[in-house]
Order: sequence, then C-alpha cells, then structure tokens
Amino acid sequence: MNDIEQTVDELKFDDAGLLPAVIVDVQSKAVLMVAYMNRQSLLETIRTGKTHFWSRSRKKYWMKGEESGHTQEVQAVYTDCDKDCVVVEVLQHGAACHDGYRSCFYRRLTPDGGWEIVAEKVFDPGKVYGRGK
Amino acid sequence: MNDIEQTVDELKFDDAGLLPAVIVDVQSKAVLMVAYMNRQSLLETIRTGKTHFWSRSRKKYWMKGEESGHTQEVQAVYTDCDKDCVVVEVLQHGAACHDGYRSCFYRRLTPDGGWEIVAEKVFDPGKVYGRGK
Repeated sequence: MNDIEQTVDELKFDDAGLLPAVIVDVQSKAVLMVAYMNRQSLLETIRTGKTHFWSRSRKKYWMKGEESGHTQEVQAVYTDCDKDCVVVEVLQHGAACHDGYRSCFYRRLTPDGGWEIVAEKVFDPGKVYGRGK
Repeated sequence: MNDIEQTVDELKFDDAGLLPAVIVDVQSKAVLMVAYMNRQSLLETIRTGKTHFWSRSRKKYWMKGEESGHTQEVQAVYTDCDKDCVVVEVLQHGAACHDGYRSCFYRRLTPDGGWEIVAEKVFDPGKVYGRGK
C-alpha cells in the first residue's frame, strides 16, 4: 500500500500550487473540460471519486456538479512524463459545461480565422443554474 | 475573413501570457501531451499547421518535433467556454513523449496509490534524441 499523500507530493504543482487537470469522458474520450487542482483538491478527487478543483478566480474549492448535479465519477487518473499535469477519465453525469454543452470545448477555429460553435446544447443553463448563466 | 490576430487576442492568456494547450490524437482521441502556448506560439501553430509552444523552464519557443522529427500536424483547434485553454487535434508523426511513449500520459494511478506504467515504448529516446534522455 502506497501513501497517497506521498504519491500526490511527487507531482509538480506550479508556483501557485496548481496543476492543470484535463477531464476526459471515459466513453467518448472527448476532452470535457480543463480546470486547476491543488494538492488538496486532487486528494479529495482521489478519496471521494468525484472531481474537485480550485477556482483561481473565486479562490475556493469546488466540486464539479455541486450546484448543477452534473458530477463526474472518477474512473482513472493519469499523469505525464513531467508529472506536472493530470488527465482524469470520468463518467460524466449530465454535461460538463455551464453553458449547456456536453464539453466546454464547443468552439472550433474556422479556416477563415473565426470561432464557430460545433456542438448542440444538451441543457438549459438558466434552468439548471437558476441564474441565467 | 477574420483577423486571426484579433481572434487569438480574444483568448485569455494568464498573467505570464500563457494558456495550456491539450494536444489530442485526431485518430485515437487520446490526450498526447499538455504544454503551454503564448500568443506568438499559438499564431505560429495556426499559420504553419505545426504545433509550437513556449517552454516555461527553458524560456524559449519550440516546435514539437524540431529535434526528434516527431512533428504534429494541426487538424483542428478548439477553445473552451472561458476561452482560457485550447485543444489542438493533431496528426502525430512518431510519438509525442520524449520518454519514448506515444502519449506523455503513460502513468496511471493504481488502486493502492502508486503510479503504474500502462503503455509500451514505441521508440528509444537515446537513439532519437542522442543524449540518453
């Protein structure tokens, strides 16, 4: 049995104590979102089996789905060669994006240099978040 | 025709002028690597069709494959709801990881809290990089 805190401490968090976490849909393999984890939120993610992050703008912990119910069940955690990033495969309940899309990456660069929306909304953010977000 | 510089300027680079770029294999959809781009390296990526990054440790631009020949041909660029991250789908020549694996995310967290290698090496880094890296 390894000490999970020691394993997490092997990772290289940046000067702000954060690393990017790429959240991938275990079924479609689509990148659902990218958010930041600090040591504590990664430990919470591993211990509870639900993704937890650190919000750089709000300066607080948050669990994905705490408001929307759109939680993410952790299926696997990977790290890279430099150990400064994690990929988390999840079973996504509902959808990942607060704009109502399955994935946050719903905009694609067009050949003429603009952004186009390439996904369909799967829920109404106004109803789910109750604040028209 | 949109002004590509203006489109890139809509993105939210962090205080260091960077954003994380998640590089995805267009065929398998696997996350190959995560690295950082600044405004200039993202413009280079779009204009040349090959991925370019900013190295935080070496403080220099680099093109993926400049040494190894393992370049990445850009197939599509996506951004997220917050416009502070990009996903780049690529056709990967050779392999993405300088440790010799197809993807940099070759380590998975085990149920007993350690890291296990879950991929096979596809090239010998000593031969490709010529410095036993």
